[in-house]
Amino acid sequence: MEKTIRELAQLIGGKVIGDDSVVITETRGFEQAAPQSITFAIGEYVEHIHLCKAGAIILEAEVTNAPMPQIIVDNAKAAFAQVLQLFHPPVIVPREVHPTAIIGENVTLGNNVAIGAYCVINDNAVIGDNVTIRPYVYIGHNTRIGNDCDIYAGAIVHENCVLGNRVVLRAKAVIGGEGFGFATENGVHTHIPQVGNVILEDDVEIGSCTTIDNATMGSTLVRKGTKIDNLVHLGHNVEIGENCFLIAQVGIAGSTKCGNNVIFAGQTGCTGHITIGDNAKFAGKTGITGNVPADAVMAGYPMRPHKEWLKLSAYEHRLPEMVKTVKQLQKEIDALKAQLKES
Amino acid sequence: MEKTIRELAQLIGGKVIGDDSVVITETRGFEQAAPQSITFAIGEYVEHIHLCKAGAIILEAEVTNAPMPQIIVDNAKAAFAQVLQLFHPPVIVPREVHPTAIIGENVTLGNNVAIGAYCVINDNAVIGDNVTIRPYVYIGHNTRIGNDCDIYAGAIVHENCVLGNRVVLRAKAVIGGEGFGFATENGVHTHIPQVGNVILEDDVEIGSCTTIDNATMGSTLVRKGTKIDNLVHLGHNVEIGENCFLIAQVGIAGSTKCGNNVIFAGQTGCTGHITIGDNAKFAGKTGITGNVPADAVMAGYPMRPHKEWLKLSAYEHRLPEMVKTVKQLQKEIDALKAQLKES
Amino acid sequence: MEKTIRELAQLIGGKVIGDDSVVITETRGFEQAAPQSITFAIGEYVEHIHLCKAGAIILEAEVTNAPMPQIIVDNAKAAFAQVLQLFHPPVIVPREVHPTAIIGENVTLGNNVAIGAYCVINDNAVIGDNVTIRPYVYIGHNTRIGNDCDIYAGAIVHENCVLGNRVVLRAKAVIGGEGFGFATENGVHTHIPQVGNVILEDDVEIGSCTTIDNATMGSTLVRKGTKIDNLVHLGHNVEIGENCFLIAQVGIAGSTKCGNNVIFAGQTGCTGHITIGDNAKFAGKTGITGNVPADAVMAGYPMRPHKEWLKLSAYEHRLPEMVKTVKQLQKEIDALKAQLKES
Repeated sequence: MEKTIRELAQLIGGKVIGDDSVVITETRGFEQAAPQSITFAIGEYVEHIHLCKAGAIILEAEVTNAPMPQIIVDNAKAAFAQVLQLFHPPVIVPREVHPTAIIGENVTLGNNVAIGAYCVINDNAVIGDNVTIRPYVYIGHNTRIGNDCDIYAGAIVHENCVLGNRVVLRAKAVIGGEGFGFATENGVHTHIPQVGNVILEDDVEIGSCTTIDNATMGSTLVRKGTKIDNLVHLGHNVEIGENCFLIAQVGIAGSTKCGNNVIFAGQTGCTGHITIGDNAKFAGKTGITGNVPADAVMAGYPMRPHKEWLKLSAYEHRLPEMVKTVKQLQKEIDALKAQLKES
Repeated sequence: MEKTIRELAQLIGGKVIGDDSVVITETRGFEQAAPQSITFAIGEYVEHIHLCKAGAIILEAEVTNAPMPQIIVDNAKAAFAQVLQLFHPPVIVPREVHPTAIIGENVTLGNNVAIGAYCVINDNAVIGDNVTIRPYVYIGHNTRIGNDCDIYAGAIVHENCVLGNRVVLRAKAVIGGEGFGFATENGVHTHIPQVGNVILEDDVEIGSCTTIDNATMGSTLVRKGTKIDNLVHLGHNVEIGENCFLIAQVGIAGSTKCGNNVIFAGQTGCTGHITIGDNAKFAGKTGITGNVPADAVMAGYPMRPHKEWLKLSAYEHRLPEMVKTVKQLQKEIDALKAQLKES
Repeated sequence: MEKTIRELAQLIGGKVIGDDSVVITETRGFEQAAPQSITFAIGEYVEHIHLCKAGAIILEAEVTNAPMPQIIVDNAKAAFAQVLQLFHPPVIVPREVHPTAIIGENVTLGNNVAIGAYCVINDNAVIGDNVTIRPYVYIGHNTRIGNDCDIYAGAIVHENCVLGNRVVLRAKAVIGGEGFGFATENGVHTHIPQVGNVILEDDVEIGSCTTIDNATMGSTLVRKGTKIDNLVHLGHNVEIGENCFLIAQVGIAGSTKCGNNVIFAGQTGCTGHITIGDNAKFAGKTGITGNVPADAVMAGYPMRPHKEWLKLSAYEHRLPEMVKTVKQLQKEIDALKAQLKES
């Protein structure tokens, strides 16, 4: 797409300072901008405008001697969002069932549903209104999907699961796989059928290649508003509260129950059968080894309060010096003893 | 499904205490049960029956003043399993090759095989008897699948691999990808073809989004009965023994060899080219940095015996106090020295 | 395939010592070789030839009393590579667009392209010359794929992404998913559209089930020659330099910028918004918590220079002994004090 600065200024209702005939072909962030880019600056960024290589910049006040034409608006971020939408129109998904989609018996499809190429929607599934299902999505028998959900290519929802409204599943998320449950006798492991399901409440988002296992019985549960990043694993019977964040590569073992507004930073691992209170926070790579009270901020492995972990990490540095000092003290004491014996 | 307590009692041969006309529509675990649920209680759970919200409960002996109707049987767990099967009949997969499945040349299909929609089975593949292959499964050229295997949606088995009998691959498992092998010259990395394969012996189970790479030559090998959870990675030429457990997000680097009955808890990582003895156990997040003898129980990173790791973790707490104490001792010694000099 | 040693010797231009009529049916590495295998030995391996069980061995000089027939050549490794290709001919992918592939409007296909079964190539995508796209690959709207790329089954490249020449995507790699970006108000998280893309430069390889998220704006960028293993995660706006290695299960948080020739060993995690210099190296499981200068070699969590980490890990052992010693010193000092008081 090619737009002149003049055309862009008209779109966002701004005033041009400089040559309004310059042609812009893309949007970029401030630091990555090039002569064909438009970007924006607010706050501290404005001071560094002479380092910016954009062909045009959206500002909230004129900058003297800026190296490129400016468009002055009231709200630069909102104006830039409008330009972003112009250059990056969201992909329009046709509101139809693609002829290659395989729809089972007794499936209920809501209004304004889009089902992409090569989807398989199994018997008795229920798909709500305005749901977008992209190619290669597999919906298991009896699974219910609420309204306004968006399911990306290759996601799998196994049978008997329940998704609320506005749930997003990113590409290749796997919901409702059989949990890792075995009975071991004489060293031989026999799989125990995991007949439960997974429930994802309203406004839950699940990242790419994230796997959430079925409960053994009952439900593995993610409460409303919780956002889960890529490559995360939730074991059977896990319960995650409302509005939590689980960052990439977090793993939560079976039957752990977690409150609301909890944040698990990346690669944190959590043992099974424990309870985590509301508003708890875990630094990256934390190894959660036991129950955690509400509002705790934890780090390390074994897990400690974050401040203590930082303190201990700092003190570790001093270990070699300490060993030396203690040896030295021993010598001094021995010298004192000898001296006393003599005296 | 709707069943009265009377109907359920008949199914499991139990005796009803209370109103047998109550309608039950689902099974749930003891703690999650609601008025429309049936559940069961044994052991300690029986003491907490007054907290249970189930509409009906299966017990092995009558409880006075229970808040819901009871069904009394000899074995409550087995009876509940019968009820589970009634409410959660396993999905019946038709024993047919779906018309959209693409079957290559010279493919051998066993008896009673089910091949789902949009599968691609490549030339010279061999599929054993009673194998269930769900939608979107890709079987590479020359790959051999034993009898009674169950392969979930979207799993991929690359060419030349060998699966034994009763092998289970969960959704989106990737077996036989090219290993991560490169020759580096002047900082530039050139891929070395990994012409080996993967062998999964009888009764192996592989979790969702788990990746097992081909050997450079020979075979990456998982021996019989070993169960691998979701999001695990096995590098090229890894060998895992019999009846091991690899919990979610474990990673094993290339050419490591592991004995039988080994347990790797979640997020454990293992360096390449080492040997791990039979019955070794690794706590979650262990960093395995060298050979491990049989029967060892290890934890931490760098790895230590689990008991030592616990002890050191406890001692770490005392570091700041120690630093203080040592400073104090230094002062006392200096005071003693001064005193001696004076005297 | 069955070949006599004589036939194999002819293929590689070698001289047979021993019975040239022995039939060989497979290639194996030195340690895994069996009577039906051919293998090779160079360097130290030659000294252990009496332990090798191969039916034939390729060598660069005759070994007296070897337990199997030998084929003597100038370059044993190169000769064995020829034999490998004979026994493991690469799968031939037909240079055609499979009739089940769905090609959108205004898609550009280069010369000699192969597009597999059940692929979905969306509107305005550009596919370069000699590109191989295997089954179930999804290419988003406007995405551009360079020449000679190889994309394995089930990989997904979302819209607006750019792949250079000779890029390899392994099975189920997900390129260009929406980044994990949210605005949080009163504890409720709202997704911020991530309108950027992913750029993978020439000769980049991406492993199975690896996920690389779109930039919020601009591009998440992997520069030429970098090789990424399985189950790795790159957050939005990450930039990875040239010829880096990211081993399995590494995670890099958003907006981190990394130089050239950097090596991240397995399960390393990296915080967001930091800078890593050229040639830095990270041991497995490192927790990268801040900026890293060029040429640094780091380990542990919190990260330290690798040598210091090794030293501190060794000193940790001595903590319990230290605590004991310090107590003992306290006693001795107390004794000295008492003695001085008396004197």
